[in-house]
Amino acid sequence: MSATVPHSLLLKNPTNSLKPTSLATQFGSFPTNLSLPTTTPKPFAITCSSAAATTTTPIPAAASTSASSNRVFNFAAGPATLPENVLLKAQSELYDWRGSGMSVMEMSHRGKEFLSIIQKAESDLRELLNIPSDYDVLFLQGGATTQFAAIPLNICQPDDVVDYVVTGSWGDKAYKEAAKFCKPKVIWTGKPDKYTNIPGFDSLEQSPDAKYLHICANETIHGVEFKDYPTPKSSNAILVADMSSNFCSKPVDVSKFGVIYAGAQKNVGPSGVTIVIIRKDLIGNAQPITPVMLDYKIHSENKSLYNTPPCYGIYMCGLVFEDLLAQGGLGEVEKKNKKKAQILYDTIDGSNGFYRCPVEKSVRSLMNVPFTLEKSELEAEFIKEAAKEKMVQLKGHRSVGGMRASIYNAMPYDGVEKLVAFMKDFQARHG
Amino acid sequence: MSATVPHSLLLKNPTNSLKPTSLATQFGSFPTNLSLPTTTPKPFAITCSSAAATTTTPIPAAASTSASSNRVFNFAAGPATLPENVLLKAQSELYDWRGSGMSVMEMSHRGKEFLSIIQKAESDLRELLNIPSDYDVLFLQGGATTQFAAIPLNICQPDDVVDYVVTGSWGDKAYKEAAKFCKPKVIWTGKPDKYTNIPGFDSLEQSPDAKYLHICANETIHGVEFKDYPTPKSSNAILVADMSSNFCSKPVDVSKFGVIYAGAQKNVGPSGVTIVIIRKDLIGNAQPITPVMLDYKIHSENKSLYNTPPCYGIYMCGLVFEDLLAQGGLGEVEKKNKKKAQILYDTIDGSNGFYRCPVEKSVRSLMNVPFTLEKSELEAEFIKEAAKEKMVQLKGHRSVGGMRASIYNAMPYDGVEKLVAFMKDFQARHG
Repeated sequence: MSATVPHSLLLKNPTNSLKPTSLATQFGSFPTNLSLPTTTPKPFAITCSSAAATTTTPIPAAASTSASSNRVFNFAAGPATLPENVLLKAQSELYDWRGSGMSVMEMSHRGKEFLSIIQKAESDLRELLNIPSDYDVLFLQGGATTQFAAIPLNICQPDDVVDYVVTGSWGDKAYKEAAKFCKPKVIWTGKPDKYTNIPGFDSLEQSPDAKYLHICANETIHGVEFKDYPTPKSSNAILVADMSSNFCSKPVDVSKFGVIYAGAQKNVGPSGVTIVIIRKDLIGNAQPITPVMLDYKIHSENKSLYNTPPCYGIYMCGLVFEDLLAQGGLGEVEKKNKKKAQILYDTIDGSNGFYRCPVEKSVRSLMNVPFTLEKSELEAEFIKEAAKEKMVQLKGHRSVGGMRASIYNAMPYDGVEKLVAFMKDFQARHG
Repeated sequence: MSATVPHSLLLKNPTNSLKPTSLATQFGSFPTNLSLPTTTPKPFAITCSSAAATTTTPIPAAASTSASSNRVFNFAAGPATLPENVLLKAQSELYDWRGSGMSVMEMSHRGKEFLSIIQKAESDLRELLNIPSDYDVLFLQGGATTQFAAIPLNICQPDDVVDYVVTGSWGDKAYKEAAKFCKPKVIWTGKPDKYTNIPGFDSLEQSPDAKYLHICANETIHGVEFKDYPTPKSSNAILVADMSSNFCSKPVDVSKFGVIYAGAQKNVGPSGVTIVIIRKDLIGNAQPITPVMLDYKIHSENKSLYNTPPCYGIYMCGLVFEDLLAQGGLGEVEKKNKKKAQILYDTIDGSNGFYRCPVEKSVRSLMNVPFTLEKSELEAEFIKEAAKEKMVQLKGHRSVGGMRASIYNAMPYDGVEKLVAFMKDFQARHG
């Protein structure tokens, strides 16, 4: 195979090398507060006198694929958009992680290189969420759906009663799975109102002997988010929360919870990593029928290395945690998320009913914004036109229809601004 | 941040752009039969008349990190070395997958882009192993350790008897986990001989009513590999095999098995993906206490998309499958693996006892080669000197000590050749 490149290809993307991130990644430093250009910089021509030079400097892989101009705004509910600088950082060291001579994907999970990665990821997450020292942080596999079983298997015995507040599809799935391993009770459900609200905590009729109270902190499909958290009635009971779709989107008082669990693929990484934050005294009582991979004690004793963990996913989460810290932590991140959600909900509410969000205002999610069109026959057109404008994955979940804009941490303000402008223009043309 | 680069940096890696893989990845075509240089090509200087050119063409991230000269030979048992061209391909499209404007890590698992990835991965794997149409292929999470529970939970009821042939640590772990969910029986164990052999199949005393016969096709820690497979005694019984550490290392007659399962992180991808190949008629009988994520029926009905799968890992497996097909399929791959193992075992056996492999010759693994030094006090020195020569992860598993060279599909012949040369030199100096 020849090493020469047709000249026509040389200037294919002559300007990518100008991107500050190319330099930042090149030098291995993390472009933290860097705001990346979403438009292509002015074209620039390289002129060389040497034929050799023009025939032996191909546009290298990373640069040629790092054309920000081609990047879409991805409103998918998860897996979801990741920070652009994190992706470029990952790309720059995919083949050779920091001079180790290997990819993170090739590293023994017991080698010093990967141990430094997982330990940094945990300590950064502990700093982000200010996790108390009497809590374990576990990096597991299988998604929140595996935790739907692990929670009852580890926290209670078959005859124990546990309470579920069901504010959407995920809470409902968690309840149904628990029924295999204990006696779960739905003490409140939003189903009659199509999951558009959250109950007042005083009105909750908690079981006096419940071992735990389970909530889904943010319902990805229905766009309902807890703004505060209920307190379990019984003093021995704990609060358990599925935070998959709003994990690390705002500060959380971890000490209020017995267990917090979250799939990484919304706010903090790729799919394939599940993070469990659990109070240490709750560990060690798994039912005898608990598969070893669902036993928190095993993972706690082995620091998430009982078997081979999802190493590359944990590495990616680590890069995201670094980025969140560099942004100033979760307080700053929450401010940005509020600003993004604000302009989107304002546009919906200010559309005189052209756009509609069914969710009760006080509990609207900052992460997932479901909305419909008054003229539902226009929804397909809306999604089609948006895609043409490089705004993708706006279709609502198949179970509820309509549209949904997921605007997780990594969705830039520019993306929501562009969506809002498009919505107003679309209304002007079709209203 | 300035876009200009100090001139001193420009020629830091002036020759990387000459690497054929840079071009191959640049053009998006897959450098299939390409054998990559493990030494740096001759330095080459770019001469430009334009100052602008010399100050505006930084060494891009990928190229600067793709210096083959820095790449180590990684003998880790898993996660393990991956094909260099697969890594470069992944790097080239990490930020923007084939013009989609997003990374594979950001794609909705229900979007057309990812569906094309997982469907291609499955069809390529079916071609590689010639998987019959009455078998399902599932891409799951949780490693083989999760399958240790899923197998009995899906294949039998609590009172069913099942047989385990234990030829190493992994088979033993599988047996112990099964005891939670059925009545497993160890019908043969290599423990008395420190797991250095495999029984004659005729001598196996199988339980007449066993639901399945379980083997670990290759024991990663002890280096014992089945060269042929036993047949279950009862006509209703099936053969179940953990193929984690020799999956896709050679052709296998899938029709001989009821279930084949394998963690991807040895031969076919990064950690975090578990592949299950199961005869369809075995699906649908899970015990009531089976967590939904361990129920093959759920994953089969949903084509591995019941919940969010480990998308990026599946994408990487797909790239590896493409590469294995491009090499000519598993027949060709097996030839290469035999050649590699041959020169390593010959070196051990020809060392007059300086090096020793405890495994019975007829069942020595082509993947994991454990060996000790007659003078065990030299083992630490051996590992240290090898690491200096960029041959890493040669330490034996903590449970058995000594050394272990894992030489999976992606370990180049050059790597084993270099190890063998080092071993002979080490013996000459210390023998």
